[in-house]
Amino acid sequence: MTVHNEALRDHACLIVHGPDQPGLVAAVTGLITRHKANIVSLDQYSDNPEGGAFFQRVVFHRPELTAAFDEIESDIAETLKPYGMTWRLTDQSIPKRMAVLASTSDHCLLDLLWRHRRGELPVSIPMVISNHTNMVEDVRSFGIPFFHVPSQGPDKSAAEAEIVKLLSGNVDFVVLARYMQILSDNFIQDVAVPVINIHHSFLPAFIGAGPYRKAKERGVKLIGATSHYVTKDLDEGPIIEQDVVRVTHADSAADLQRRGADVERAVLSRAVLWHAQDRVIRNGNHTVVF
Amino acid sequence: MTVHNEALRDHACLIVHGPDQPGLVAAVTGLITRHKANIVSLDQYSDNPEGGAFFQRVVFHRPELTAAFDEIESDIAETLKPYGMTWRLTDQSIPKRMAVLASTSDHCLLDLLWRHRRGELPVSIPMVISNHTNMVEDVRSFGIPFFHVPSQGPDKSAAEAEIVKLLSGNVDFVVLARYMQILSDNFIQDVAVPVINIHHSFLPAFIGAGPYRKAKERGVKLIGATSHYVTKDLDEGPIIEQDVVRVTHADSAADLQRRGADVERAVLSRAVLWHAQDRVIRNGNHTVVF
Amino acid sequence: MTVHNEALRDHACLIVHGPDQPGLVAAVTGLITRHKANIVSLDQYSDNPEGGAFFQRVVFHRPELTAAFDEIESDIAETLKPYGMTWRLTDQSIPKRMAVLASTSDHCLLDLLWRHRRGELPVSIPMVISNHTNMVEDVRSFGIPFFHVPSQGPDKSAAEAEIVKLLSGNVDFVVLARYMQILSDNFIQDVAVPVINIHHSFLPAFIGAGPYRKAKERGVKLIGATSHYVTKDLDEGPIIEQDVVRVTHADSAADLQRRGADVERAVLSRAVLWHAQDRVIRNGNHTVVF
Amino acid sequence: MTVHNEALRDHACLIVHGPDQPGLVAAVTGLITRHKANIVSLDQYSDNPEGGAFFQRVVFHRPELTAAFDEIESDIAETLKPYGMTWRLTDQSIPKRMAVLASTSDHCLLDLLWRHRRGELPVSIPMVISNHTNMVEDVRSFGIPFFHVPSQGPDKSAAEAEIVKLLSGNVDFVVLARYMQILSDNFIQDVAVPVINIHHSFLPAFIGAGPYRKAKERGVKLIGATSHYVTKDLDEGPIIEQDVVRVTHADSAADLQRRGADVERAVLSRAVLWHAQDRVIRNGNHTVVF
Repeated sequence: MTVHNEALRDHACLIVHGPDQPGLVAAVTGLITRHKANIVSLDQYSDNPEGGAFFQRVVFHRPELTAAFDEIESDIAETLKPYGMTWRLTDQSIPKRMAVLASTSDHCLLDLLWRHRRGELPVSIPMVISNHTNMVEDVRSFGIPFFHVPSQGPDKSAAEAEIVKLLSGNVDFVVLARYMQILSDNFIQDVAVPVINIHHSFLPAFIGAGPYRKAKERGVKLIGATSHYVTKDLDEGPIIEQDVVRVTHADSAADLQRRGADVERAVLSRAVLWHAQDRVIRNGNHTVVF
Repeated sequence: MTVHNEALRDHACLIVHGPDQPGLVAAVTGLITRHKANIVSLDQYSDNPEGGAFFQRVVFHRPELTAAFDEIESDIAETLKPYGMTWRLTDQSIPKRMAVLASTSDHCLLDLLWRHRRGELPVSIPMVISNHTNMVEDVRSFGIPFFHVPSQGPDKSAAEAEIVKLLSGNVDFVVLARYMQILSDNFIQDVAVPVINIHHSFLPAFIGAGPYRKAKERGVKLIGATSHYVTKDLDEGPIIEQDVVRVTHADSAADLQRRGADVERAVLSRAVLWHAQDRVIRNGNHTVVF
Repeated sequence: MTVHNEALRDHACLIVHGPDQPGLVAAVTGLITRHKANIVSLDQYSDNPEGGAFFQRVVFHRPELTAAFDEIESDIAETLKPYGMTWRLTDQSIPKRMAVLASTSDHCLLDLLWRHRRGELPVSIPMVISNHTNMVEDVRSFGIPFFHVPSQGPDKSAAEAEIVKLLSGNVDFVVLARYMQILSDNFIQDVAVPVINIHHSFLPAFIGAGPYRKAKERGVKLIGATSHYVTKDLDEGPIIEQDVVRVTHADSAADLQRRGADVERAVLSRAVLWHAQDRVIRNGNHTVVF
Repeated sequence: MTVHNEALRDHACLIVHGPDQPGLVAAVTGLITRHKANIVSLDQYSDNPEGGAFFQRVVFHRPELTAAFDEIESDIAETLKPYGMTWRLTDQSIPKRMAVLASTSDHCLLDLLWRHRRGELPVSIPMVISNHTNMVEDVRSFGIPFFHVPSQGPDKSAAEAEIVKLLSGNVDFVVLARYMQILSDNFIQDVAVPVINIHHSFLPAFIGAGPYRKAKERGVKLIGATSHYVTKDLDEGPIIEQDVVRVTHADSAADLQRRGADVERAVLSRAVLWHAQDRVIRNGNHTVVF
């Protein structure tokens, strides 16, 4: 049974992207008006006014949305066909299903669970999966299922297969909340839903392991965190959100880690919120964030 | 003769606001499409989905805009009449005419003149008016006329009348770049164009004179600046932009003044830019900034 | 039995303040050297080089500190007597005892408990007191005692007396983690330890109740939070820390509340950390934060 | 003739660094007291409490400093000899002589000249050198000599030699205010004073040419600027200061450049101020900034 978010009942979100053409916005907004819906918010962006890519996000309110959903979808398909656009329509009252993968660190994981409990994140969380067990009690105290999938030895394929089996069909996206295992290309392909990571540096600075140590060695005056979609290239995927905090010569590597943890959880929470609200559209290796 | 901004040739900006109603966005975008224009950017906001106020800013590109301008205006008037909306259409390539009023402080004034020279501000600057003469050479070195209107004694009405005479018909908006005279209600009415002020505090904290001294006395850990439209109530007008900078116990009132100057010029420059680009819509004592 | 922080074993912190005089720093550092201690960090500040107030914080490492503590204290007393200085010496390995008073809001309370569990706050938490019961399970899951002291009706004196009784002799400072009761002057006097509050605005803007609503009404572009010591004047005590976050016209009062909560917990946690580390010295209605 | 800064008359700054040892601070502060000087500010840092490097900056006020300067220097040399420390004593009222090297960009250059005119930078500026002539009038309007040293063709050695000749003996440090020529190792050696650069990225991200273009390509959500001492390794020298500003998908590479310019001038001005005040101590490839 789908959990509904009552505040967003009868709200739909339409994402449209593809080649920019005159008349697109009018076509979409005309369509919405025809279906007796009221536009709640509308964002659009074209990466080049002359022949670039077009991105649009419209949230509209349509009483009795559920009954009309299929018809609206058909109309969108027909209306947008001549324009050759990619699109998707979602019912905003149906929360996306989010799995969290974690290791021993608690800060990103707990912040997501806590925000979810507060009602800040429009998601359901069917499971947390970890290669460690230290967080089992914390997770279950939020009423969320916890699965332990150890990941030892050089061959991770069995662990990855077990995780894919748990996720398969059960989730709409996956969040790596400081999950300290490098995932294989096969895993990314098999999981077949977006995977969001938090990297503990201001990418592209300090790619890979030990960013706080590297930051200390380089003597930077700000440290950061970056949330991005995972692709087959480590720490190279499309960036959703980044932020930084000021540090000084007096901060040790441990201080950087402690202060960075605050930035990590804030950045990841924002990225997850925006993804859950369909505010993030991938554009090659970039993101459009409305 | 109007100075044109070539990069914005054939770009128009349409601002619409009034009571929110279904079909508004479709009506506006349909109209733009009918006129063979391409939407470059579109922002909209409704302050209450149920019967609130609606605000929209659309920038569109229409080849041969000048020739079509009157016809588009007529069409907008007719299209929006049933909705009872307020609207205005501007040719983005025609820079707004901005007068700057200053006193002895140079930081806000010079930052505006310098950004204007760099091409960052889409305005023309027909005049700088000051009640002091210390900036005359600086201003003229930018090729901008300087007028000295002293303002001594308790009765400012003669000085204000002289300023109104200089401004009248020559400017589209006025910027108070740390102009240290309180303007009368009559002046605000007579000048009859928007007046933008920079106040050297994070309003509504430290209204009135001596905000840095007051900030030092209160022991705040951040100081700020606020740019707002001037109304008859001192420092109470609609806020356009604000920002802050961190200070410590070790900063003297003079330090606050020096560090605050950087925030003042940054905040004022952003407010002026956004106003010049028709991004700011007044909504009672609030602003919508697109 | 005192819980010890091993990382800070044999570290002492000396706070000195009073009238600035030549030779003071040399007297203090000479004393520390005589006691075979090594200075780990030293901060000092004079609010006026000519006859102002002097503030100093020195952390030094002295093997076998416990055995030497009384002797060092006597020496400090004797050395500083001619200068007429106020001072205190603390063993940094002994965590301060912190009570938290809360109401229904969880964000500040949980952030403190979680940081404490992570080892980020050098305090012990002997109790959480609330006038509500919704947080009892959360608090006890951290292994921390929870006391419910209801506060109904206009007369709060019985509730306050009960709280004073719980706190008396058991704590070194009190944190109001969004405790939604105004405390009487008598309470502040009777509790006889520092009380730290978090106010959900950038003080001195929006003193009193409903700051987010007031911020929305005024149309500010940044909202903030302020942590300060509680005095008999509501929201007027010495400010320890402040911070802000950017908001827009599109943020509702509920959005401000949600986004402000992140600033509140961050600001309060920093204020608590600095207080616990003896980094904050009160100077009239100001603070010196080293 | 030396220009004096009256506000800092009789203020000296002593920088001490070397191996950390017990008694160092007492030795230094005792020495200052013996010379009847009053400590105005004191900062110290040890990068490792057990056998690390020690850094100290003390500003003290000593009436008739000029007359006593040599004697104090001798005393410092004798006092610190047993500790094996590096040190330098400077008269704070004597501004450092700063040369600025620029190309066509005006923002960093003008910000430095303007702050200097305002009295914000305790330096004298004996010359601006540029490989272009577009800024000659602006520079001379500040009353500062301008020298044009063209730098064409692959062999820059003649141009570098001419610059070294101009600088030699005339300046205490050099600022590269967006000087778009890569300087040779020989130049760095021959110039024999610190050289401060501003790089238009958040180092170590986007080393080398075209950082804004690279930032746009990577799709970062913040852009930054970094001021550092120049060493023989391009963009690898010790970082003095960094800062960032938020950008979005909608910002073009030109927007990044425009918004980045504001960060560049702010970061460079802070780095120059701190260097001029002897607040920056090099520690291998790091800086200690007091």
